[in-house]
Amino acid sequence: MEPLHKTLFQLREDASQIFYAGFLGVDPQSAVKKYCRIENKNNNLIIGERIYDLCRFKNIYVIGAGKASASMAKGIEEILGNRISKGIINVKYEHLEDLKIIRLIEAGHPVPDSNGLKGAEAMLALIKYLKPDDLVICLISGGGSALLPLPANGLTLKDKQDTIKVLLSCGADIHEINTIRKHVSLIKGGRLVQHVYPATLVSLILSDVVGDNLDVISSGPTVPDISTFSDCLYIIDKYQISDKLPASIFQHIKKGVHGEIQETPKADDKLFENTYNKIIGSNIEAILAAKDKANRLGYNTLILSSMIEGDTVETAHFHAAIAREILKTGHPVTTPACIISGGETTIKIKGKGLGGRNQEFVLAAALKIIEQKNIVVLSCGTDGTDGPTDAAGAVADNQTIKKAQRMGIKPQHFLDDNDSYHFFEKLGDLIKTGPTNTNVMDLRIVLVESLVSKQEG
Amino acid sequence: MEPLHKTLFQLREDASQIFYAGFLGVDPQSAVKKYCRIENKNNNLIIGERIYDLCRFKNIYVIGAGKASASMAKGIEEILGNRISKGIINVKYEHLEDLKIIRLIEAGHPVPDSNGLKGAEAMLALIKYLKPDDLVICLISGGGSALLPLPANGLTLKDKQDTIKVLLSCGADIHEINTIRKHVSLIKGGRLVQHVYPATLVSLILSDVVGDNLDVISSGPTVPDISTFSDCLYIIDKYQISDKLPASIFQHIKKGVHGEIQETPKADDKLFENTYNKIIGSNIEAILAAKDKANRLGYNTLILSSMIEGDTVETAHFHAAIAREILKTGHPVTTPACIISGGETTIKIKGKGLGGRNQEFVLAAALKIIEQKNIVVLSCGTDGTDGPTDAAGAVADNQTIKKAQRMGIKPQHFLDDNDSYHFFEKLGDLIKTGPTNTNVMDLRIVLVESLVSKQEG
Repeated sequence: MEPLHKTLFQLREDASQIFYAGFLGVDPQSAVKKYCRIENKNNNLIIGERIYDLCRFKNIYVIGAGKASASMAKGIEEILGNRISKGIINVKYEHLEDLKIIRLIEAGHPVPDSNGLKGAEAMLALIKYLKPDDLVICLISGGGSALLPLPANGLTLKDKQDTIKVLLSCGADIHEINTIRKHVSLIKGGRLVQHVYPATLVSLILSDVVGDNLDVISSGPTVPDISTFSDCLYIIDKYQISDKLPASIFQHIKKGVHGEIQETPKADDKLFENTYNKIIGSNIEAILAAKDKANRLGYNTLILSSMIEGDTVETAHFHAAIAREILKTGHPVTTPACIISGGETTIKIKGKGLGGRNQEFVLAAALKIIEQKNIVVLSCGTDGTDGPTDAAGAVADNQTIKKAQRMGIKPQHFLDDNDSYHFFEKLGDLIKTGPTNTNVMDLRIVLVESLVSKQEG
Repeated sequence: MEPLHKTLFQLREDASQIFYAGFLGVDPQSAVKKYCRIENKNNNLIIGERIYDLCRFKNIYVIGAGKASASMAKGIEEILGNRISKGIINVKYEHLEDLKIIRLIEAGHPVPDSNGLKGAEAMLALIKYLKPDDLVICLISGGGSALLPLPANGLTLKDKQDTIKVLLSCGADIHEINTIRKHVSLIKGGRLVQHVYPATLVSLILSDVVGDNLDVISSGPTVPDISTFSDCLYIIDKYQISDKLPASIFQHIKKGVHGEIQETPKADDKLFENTYNKIIGSNIEAILAAKDKANRLGYNTLILSSMIEGDTVETAHFHAAIAREILKTGHPVTTPACIISGGETTIKIKGKGLGGRNQEFVLAAALKIIEQKNIVVLSCGTDGTDGPTDAAGAVADNQTIKKAQRMGIKPQHFLDDNDSYHFFEKLGDLIKTGPTNTNVMDLRIVLVESLVSKQEG
C-alpha cells in the first residue's frame, strides 16, 4: 500500500508532538520512581544497583537543587512518604510542585540571589546534627550550581558574582569557571559530602551536560573533585585577572594553594565511602522517547547523537545537509524521515539581538532548507527555556525563509545579529512551553517528506 | 552466531579498503561508459536521456579540462574510437592516460600557468572553423577552472592571477571569486558555447562541488551564467578593491557594465539550444561504492550526507559525537559500524603549518575519540590530493592521541597551527595514493567496534 504522504502542516504538528513526547519521556518524577523503589516485605530501599536497609536509618533528609529537582522531590515523596523526616530543595522561580513534606525554596537562576543563599544555609542547618544512622537523599539537576550558592567562609555572594563576571569577560571556558566556583564554595566540588559524612548519602542526578560527567553537573556537590587550588591560580595567571578579581577571592585561593584552606575532597577520600551517585536520566532518554513517538507517527527515524556540542550555525548546516541528502538519495533514511539529535551547542555572539541556541539553530537551518519538498526543523530546550528568552525554541520549514521575505523580514540579518527570537516572534513560530520541570539539554528534530509543499498564501 | 569482532588493526585496514573502493567507484572512464554508448544498428550515440544520430555529424571534436578529464577522454575514445576527428584536453601535471587520438596537455593547478593558456588557445583553434554539422564533446571535471585559463581580449594571464590574489586576500568567497573569473574569461561562464554554436555541444561533467550546481563546476564553461558585470562591480565596491585590482581588469569590468563588452550568455540565450550538459558522476557515487564495500566487509553502514560543507573542526566533532553515541547506545547504527559522509569542508587558517581539510578533520576527530573501545577515522580527497600536500588524507584511531603524546608530540599544538600534515607524517598515518584521475570531493569514513583495544607498545 502506498503510504500516505504528510502535508507541511502535519509535519509541523508532528514535530511539536515529537518534542513534547521527548521531554515528557524524562519526567523527573517518573525517573526517580524508575530507579528507586521500596520492597515492602523486607523494608529495603532499592536505588539503582544498591540496596539500603531502611531499618538502619533513624532519619531520612532530602536536600538538593536544580530546575528539575521539585519534580524529583515529588517522586521521592511518593516512594518514601512519611519516612522522610524533613527536606529542603532550591528551585528556580515558578518551577514548583505540590509537595507534602519537602519544602521548596524559589531562587535565582542563572544569576544566584539571596534566596538561593538562604536556602543553602537552611539545608546545611537541616543536616548540621546528622548522626551516622541518618540517610540524606540529594536531588541534583541542571541549574543547581546557580541555585545553590554558599560562599566559603569570609566570602560573600557578591564576591562570587563579581568573580563570575570577571571570568566571563576574560574569556575563561566553562571548565575553568567551574574550577574556581568549586574552590570558593562550601557545597560545590564534593564539599557537600563534608557536611554529611559519616551519615549515608545517596545522590540522584538528572544530567544536563554532554557526556554525563558527574563532577560537572551542578558543579558536582556530592562528587570527588579533580581540580585544585593550584589550577585556580593557573587560570588567574593565564588570564592575568589577579587585580580584577575581588581581593577576598584572590586571597582565599592563595591561602588554598598554601594549604591554609582545605582542598576540595578527592576520589580517594574516605568521605565518599558512604556516598552513592546515581544518574537517573539524561538527554538520550528524551531522544529515545521522541524516537518512539516519531515511529508511532509513521516516520523512519534515526538518532544522530545525544552528544552534539559545538557551534550552533555549523550544527544547523550539518543537519540541513542530512535533510537534503534524504530528499536526494534516501540516505541515511527514507521519507517520511525523522532525524533526532541532542546535546547543547554554543553561540558565537556577533550581534545584539535576543535569542537562544535552539532558536538560532532553527533559523540557520531554515536558510539551508529552501527546497521544493517538505522539511521541518524544530529545536527546543527540554527545560522549556532557550537562552535569556521566554521561549523553549522554535520551528521552521522549507517555506519559512520565503514567507519571511514576503513579509519584508531579512533572515540573514536576524541571524547575523543573533536575533532569532524576534525573527520567529514575527513569524509566530516560537515554541513556548513554560517551565517543564525537567532539564536534559536540547532536542533537535528534523522531519523530511517527499511531498512538494503548496505555496503559502 | 556471535559475530567476529574486528581488531583495531583490521579496522584501519578496512577503512583504507573502503576509501579505495569509494574513489574507484567513480572511475571517470567507467562513468563515461555508463552514460554514453553506441547502438550500432542505427548508428546512434546515446548520451544520458538524449539520442544523437551520428550520421548527422561530419566531425567529432573532444575538448575539456580537469583533474579527471584524461580518464574521461579514455572512456570516450573507447566508445567513439576513430570517429573522433581530433581532441585536446588540459590536465593537471602527471594526471595522464594512454590515449590514441585525443592530445593531453599538462598544465598548472591550482595556479594556472602558460601551458594551460596554450592548451586553451589550441582548443579554440581546433573548434574555430566548426560547421553546424559538427559535434563537440566537452569533458569537464573539477580543477578545470584553473586548468583552462583564457583571459578576455586585452587581459593577460598575470592580470587574472593578480586579480585572484586580491580577491583571496580581501576575503571574497568562492562565489564572488567565480563571478569575477567568469567575466574576465573567454571560456568560463558559458562563453565556450559562443565558440561552438551553432554546432552541437555535449558536455559530460564530473561534479566536484556540493549540490552539483552546473554553473559552479569549473566555472561552468558550457552552462548559462546567472551572474553579471554589475555583480562584479558590486563585489569590487563591497571590498573596496578598485585600486588594488589590475587597472586593465577594472576597466574591463566597467566596460562590461556599460555594455561595451558582451555579457556572459544567460539561460534564455538561443546559444544553448544545441547544448546538453550531463553530470556523469559525483560524490554520492563514491559514497555508495564505499558503502557497498563496507557492507561486504561486515559493517552496519550509514550514509550521513554527501553535502557536508562548513568548518573542518566542527565537522570532525560532529562525526566524533556520532561515533561516541554508537559506543554508548548503538545509535544511529550498531557495531561494527561504518559511518560515511562526503562533500568538502573549509579550514580556518590560524597557524602556519602544512595540511589539508582531510588531514585536519582526522586530527580534530582524533582528539575527540580517545575511548577505550575501537574507533577509526579516515578522511581523504578522492582526487588523491589534500590541500597543498602530497597526501590524499590521513587515518587515526582511538589510540592515536596517546601514541603521539608518548612520542612527545602535542596534538592540539599541531591542530592550532594547521599543521596536520607534519603530525600524521611523524605518526606514519598519512595516506598517499598519488593522482587517482578522479575528482568528486572528499570521503570521510568512521568505523566503530565494541572491542576494547589493546594498549600499543
